[in-house]
Amino acid sequence: MKAAVFHAKEDLRIEDVPEPSPAEGMVKLRNAFAGVCGSDLHVYYSPEASGLDFTKPHPVTGSMPPQILGHEFSGTVVELGEGVTNVAVGDRVAVWPVYYCGECAACEKGAFNACTKIGFHGLTSDGGGMAEFTTVPAEKVHVLPENVDLTLGALVEPMAVAWHAVERSRVQPGQTALIAGAGPIGIGVWFALRAHGVETIIVSEPSEARRTAIAGVGADILVDPTSEELASRVAAATGGRGVDVAFDAAGAGAAVTSAIANLTPLGRVVVVALHERGFEFNPTMLVMAETEIAGTLGYSQADFDAVIAAMADGAYDTTGWVQTVGLDAVVDSIAELRAGRGMKVLVSAD
Amino acid sequence: MKAAVFHAKEDLRIEDVPEPSPAEGMVKLRNAFAGVCGSDLHVYYSPEASGLDFTKPHPVTGSMPPQILGHEFSGTVVELGEGVTNVAVGDRVAVWPVYYCGECAACEKGAFNACTKIGFHGLTSDGGGMAEFTTVPAEKVHVLPENVDLTLGALVEPMAVAWHAVERSRVQPGQTALIAGAGPIGIGVWFALRAHGVETIIVSEPSEARRTAIAGVGADILVDPTSEELASRVAAATGGRGVDVAFDAAGAGAAVTSAIANLTPLGRVVVVALHERGFEFNPTMLVMAETEIAGTLGYSQADFDAVIAAMADGAYDTTGWVQTVGLDAVVDSIAELRAGRGMKVLVSAD
Repeated sequence: MKAAVFHAKEDLRIEDVPEPSPAEGMVKLRNAFAGVCGSDLHVYYSPEASGLDFTKPHPVTGSMPPQILGHEFSGTVVELGEGVTNVAVGDRVAVWPVYYCGECAACEKGAFNACTKIGFHGLTSDGGGMAEFTTVPAEKVHVLPENVDLTLGALVEPMAVAWHAVERSRVQPGQTALIAGAGPIGIGVWFALRAHGVETIIVSEPSEARRTAIAGVGADILVDPTSEELASRVAAATGGRGVDVAFDAAGAGAAVTSAIANLTPLGRVVVVALHERGFEFNPTMLVMAETEIAGTLGYSQADFDAVIAAMADGAYDTTGWVQTVGLDAVVDSIAELRAGRGMKVLVSAD
Repeated sequence: MKAAVFHAKEDLRIEDVPEPSPAEGMVKLRNAFAGVCGSDLHVYYSPEASGLDFTKPHPVTGSMPPQILGHEFSGTVVELGEGVTNVAVGDRVAVWPVYYCGECAACEKGAFNACTKIGFHGLTSDGGGMAEFTTVPAEKVHVLPENVDLTLGALVEPMAVAWHAVERSRVQPGQTALIAGAGPIGIGVWFALRAHGVETIIVSEPSEARRTAIAGVGADILVDPTSEELASRVAAATGGRGVDVAFDAAGAGAAVTSAIANLTPLGRVVVVALHERGFEFNPTMLVMAETEIAGTLGYSQADFDAVIAAMADGAYDTTGWVQTVGLDAVVDSIAELRAGRGMKVLVSAD
């Protein structure tokens, strides 16, 4: 079968590989779509700085490159391994791609998303979504309802990252929010906030293309922080109170400090982006209004279920920010995304 | 009556002032003891950088210097203004010294401790604890039980700062904690953690005198971060899991970053100290284990009640870290504290 296989830094090949067969407890999928993620760009351009160690077998999965990519993916069940009863052939599914050790302090708490040895199907495992077929453990498969198509199915993973961030914010219906950064995760935070009953959402994004994209799905308070004063826009939208919650989906120090500065007392900033570098920070900012900063990482299977339910409720819209390309175009797409062009690219698996 | 009156930078005078009389709704106290606080040092040495504006009348209380100091204080009720029924002459009391605007976003939430116009009795009001007498609104008075003496009563305020910090940490009985900084607030955090059912508490403090002081009240895991590896001590005390909560009572960037690094996944750092300067911070630290940093500020009246109840239960001990001086010694005491000598100084009001 055809697959996008990562061999080494800047060496990703579309090649023929053996078609997998489902072992006991496994499910074989005909893959539909797989998203290209920021992690894929990191792995492609600087695997040594990606946070993943490709030089030895993964401590949980035992895998190492060559590695089929695609950890944000959807597909249709075509074959069941022995003992699988939770899904049926023909089911359309999204895959929770997490492998975890089950023994670390995070796993002890059930926070598999923070497992110190975490692995991902499509990054550090045997197979991935950028191939015609893959096999996954049956318990990682989430069936899509009839009205959630396979395009949305491939977006469950990144939307679950954003959903988890919103859960971490502990926002309540009717509260107010600020999102810094309107890339795919920022857009996902916007959808998740709406699904949580939040109406007043200020979006701060320097890129005009990204402001246009999030406006296209319904965002109505858009700020260019390079030319407008964010504080006055936040004050106007919140009656001078500041926002209850804010999200750093930009990965910039200025996004974090301006988010804190625009919080209401006892408000909370959630950092969902990784920061390539540090910045000058004085925590007295957090003391004076009893505010806080929380990191958020990945998602749980419950987040997958919640996103799929919200998708079934019509809470998500792919207009204007999602494009689909063929498997052969994956390397070109990675280069385009790195150059700052495009938002979310889904790779068709056939 | 005799009082310690702040006039201007480095101008604090022991002088005779008129004895106050209780208006309607007010209570007159014969003051017992008043603590010298870090805020007093700020006000004395650099009022312009204290966060309080002494150049115009306070927006809530209308007061400005000359100002009697002493906002951490205890006393005995000697006279009641008209309409006061919640206390009786002879009651020994601690005073919740907060004046708030009642209108800002913090006050709307009942978080008077974060009021944007907050004032304090003994800093920005008519009167304070470093005088023979003072009058305060009856609703700010908390009666001390029989077994809580007036020395402990003067410590209710700083111990409430620490209690509030522990509440903000959301620590649960049986969890583990790290305290960076064993000054009066760090010691208060230690007492409050014990009262919250926390047994395993690692204290990191570079000063030998302060390590000795907190050891004297019972702390048993003491680390000098300048000569010992904190991480290995935390790992040993927590079975390699890291601490559930950590407190920055030091006001140093290294205390915050090492606290984050020593947290268990989903753990929480509470910053109770003010930082004079910022530091290089990368919030990816918070993302990778879903940890968080929260600021904590002051206390509520409920925190006052909780501390007084814990004092009545025998949870506090003044051995080795509290000293009492006469009113005439207040300027000398401020100088000693600034030079890093001594821990908690209580000024006797007569």
